[in-house]
Amino acid sequence: MPDPAEGSAPGCSPVPPVPTLVWRGDCLELLDQTLLPETEATVRCESAGDVARAISGMIVRGAPAIGLAAAYGVVLSAMGVEGGPGFRERVERDISLLSSTRPTAANLFHCLELQREIVSRSAGRDEAVERLLQSADELFRKDVEASLAMGRLGADLLGPGVRLLTHCNAGGLATSGFGTALAVFYEARARGWLAAAWADETRPLLQGARLTAWELTRAGIPVTVLPDSAAASLLRSGAVDAVFVGADRVAGNGDFANKIGTYPLALASREAGVPFHVVAPLSSFDTAAPDGGAIPIEERDGGEVRCLGGRILVPSEANVYNPAFDVTPGSLATAIVCEEGVLRPPYEASIGELTGCRR
Amino acid sequence: MPDPAEGSAPGCSPVPPVPTLVWRGDCLELLDQTLLPETEATVRCESAGDVARAISGMIVRGAPAIGLAAAYGVVLSAMGVEGGPGFRERVERDISLLSSTRPTAANLFHCLELQREIVSRSAGRDEAVERLLQSADELFRKDVEASLAMGRLGADLLGPGVRLLTHCNAGGLATSGFGTALAVFYEARARGWLAAAWADETRPLLQGARLTAWELTRAGIPVTVLPDSAAASLLRSGAVDAVFVGADRVAGNGDFANKIGTYPLALASREAGVPFHVVAPLSSFDTAAPDGGAIPIEERDGGEVRCLGGRILVPSEANVYNPAFDVTPGSLATAIVCEEGVLRPPYEASIGELTGCRR
Repeated sequence: MPDPAEGSAPGCSPVPPVPTLVWRGDCLELLDQTLLPETEATVRCESAGDVARAISGMIVRGAPAIGLAAAYGVVLSAMGVEGGPGFRERVERDISLLSSTRPTAANLFHCLELQREIVSRSAGRDEAVERLLQSADELFRKDVEASLAMGRLGADLLGPGVRLLTHCNAGGLATSGFGTALAVFYEARARGWLAAAWADETRPLLQGARLTAWELTRAGIPVTVLPDSAAASLLRSGAVDAVFVGADRVAGNGDFANKIGTYPLALASREAGVPFHVVAPLSSFDTAAPDGGAIPIEERDGGEVRCLGGRILVPSEANVYNPAFDVTPGSLATAIVCEEGVLRPPYEASIGELTGCRR
Repeated sequence: MPDPAEGSAPGCSPVPPVPTLVWRGDCLELLDQTLLPETEATVRCESAGDVARAISGMIVRGAPAIGLAAAYGVVLSAMGVEGGPGFRERVERDISLLSSTRPTAANLFHCLELQREIVSRSAGRDEAVERLLQSADELFRKDVEASLAMGRLGADLLGPGVRLLTHCNAGGLATSGFGTALAVFYEARARGWLAAAWADETRPLLQGARLTAWELTRAGIPVTVLPDSAAASLLRSGAVDAVFVGADRVAGNGDFANKIGTYPLALASREAGVPFHVVAPLSSFDTAAPDGGAIPIEERDGGEVRCLGGRILVPSEANVYNPAFDVTPGSLATAIVCEEGVLRPPYEASIGELTGCRR
């Protein structure tokens, strides 16, 4: 895994624009995304429990980054356990702990399943540690490559002077450091095509305002933040040429779960005749889910909506409903960009063909 | 104008559930809506300038309440000016000041135009003060009656066990104290029909979370607050039977301006097959605007989005886009409820017929 402080690792892709996760040999260092944009601080995870708490508490978030963090969490688990008869059982317990952190993103389960197989096939602790770390590094490397490929494939859908809008953060902070939907922004910028970048603020945790705006301005890309509810009239005004969002899980028919607010954004895009593209690596695809109804939707604590910055926003007598994700019907997606290509409707056929061949 | 602390005024309707504006004989007392729900405090306006600042700063907000506050602002102007040659000119200047506070709500201009005519027709200062106060009290009384009528007419569209959703605050805090869209909630509750009340939080100023939830819980009505972006999937889930929103200005063809986020809510309602109703008094109708394109949309300071409760949410290098309203095509409204009846599409005909007869 490349260390942004030390330049790119041999044989690996360029240095990530954002140091989302860095493996330090004995711990996983995470950029604390709950403190951005005011404070840039890192959290050291020295055990699977530390990683699980970081995922639950959204210190690290974004479907691909969650999967990678969990993969390194299993490495930390194996490193922290003594060899011998109880080894596999204890690592399995940590894998269960990590898999219980967040229910919606497919990548978490995909990465943990790969690590679980390695544990079950390894002869002993030392072999397991070595192979788990190789596997985590390989997942990281593939995520980098997938991000760069999705950036290129997404940008190929565009042309000069393009004005793009995104929701939440599907950027470097949600991945190995290169992004999914934002990889398209970076690539469009590199080609000199990006005329405007718009970011929904994304209530309640404001990943658009706090994270997307932070990483785009850090990369020298001017960005305008807007309340989520202002996107529909902005789209209707003709100020946006295309929308790109990430996905936490893509079902077999193209329905996909993504940050709450993605579904109304897709409706507004269709109404305005603006292309609406989903960008997600194959590790986010879950063909075991035939459609969006099979994707579990996490409901998070109402406190995320009730107060902010020490200010009480909702009277204590009122209830709060705080779903973290919604499901957008695949029929609203103009295209789904993954690292292997650009999928088009009908998605049941195009996803089936791709995943049938490749997985 | 009835003083909630003293019971209902003779010949007037019941005591308002919320003391939004109270005329104190020498000043206009406003409930400071910027401090709710944490603090219940009032602001004394002793001049037209005080009222103008209160409207600009959203101490008082909501289209009908803005109109009423401005009408009393003209009373304060006339009271504070000496009689004689320059009287009319100085009051006219204050009317211009009041009319420059916020551009979108029709009621402000409607009320100020009525007061302007009184000033121009009065023989002198004392007559003007008396007639301006009578006029403001009459506008207040009519707003109370209109609210109660709209509540009844809106509730007549419903039945037992109804689950309602609203956006922003079109309640007692937006009017004389009885509400427009929320008048329907109050009436449905009084009939024993209201099974659930949902309130969009309404970024950036959170009028749904701070104000609607405050006034509904104060009235003993259980309410659940949700992020604006969660309404679409809630509607799709079948948990809402009807949506009621207010309007700041209704154009001749039924297009209407309302708080930012109303338009995507209307799109999501149509998609889910949930009736979407607009509730607005005739003072919000502006047939001089043939369609929504003729309604000026206020863009407010980006600071409203950038920080909250002392916490910085958007990096300083990023721009912010903060339109206060959007325009919803009349074609998305199932009905428009005003104090004279329930208007149905095509609105060009039904609005034309009503306003042609009545105004």
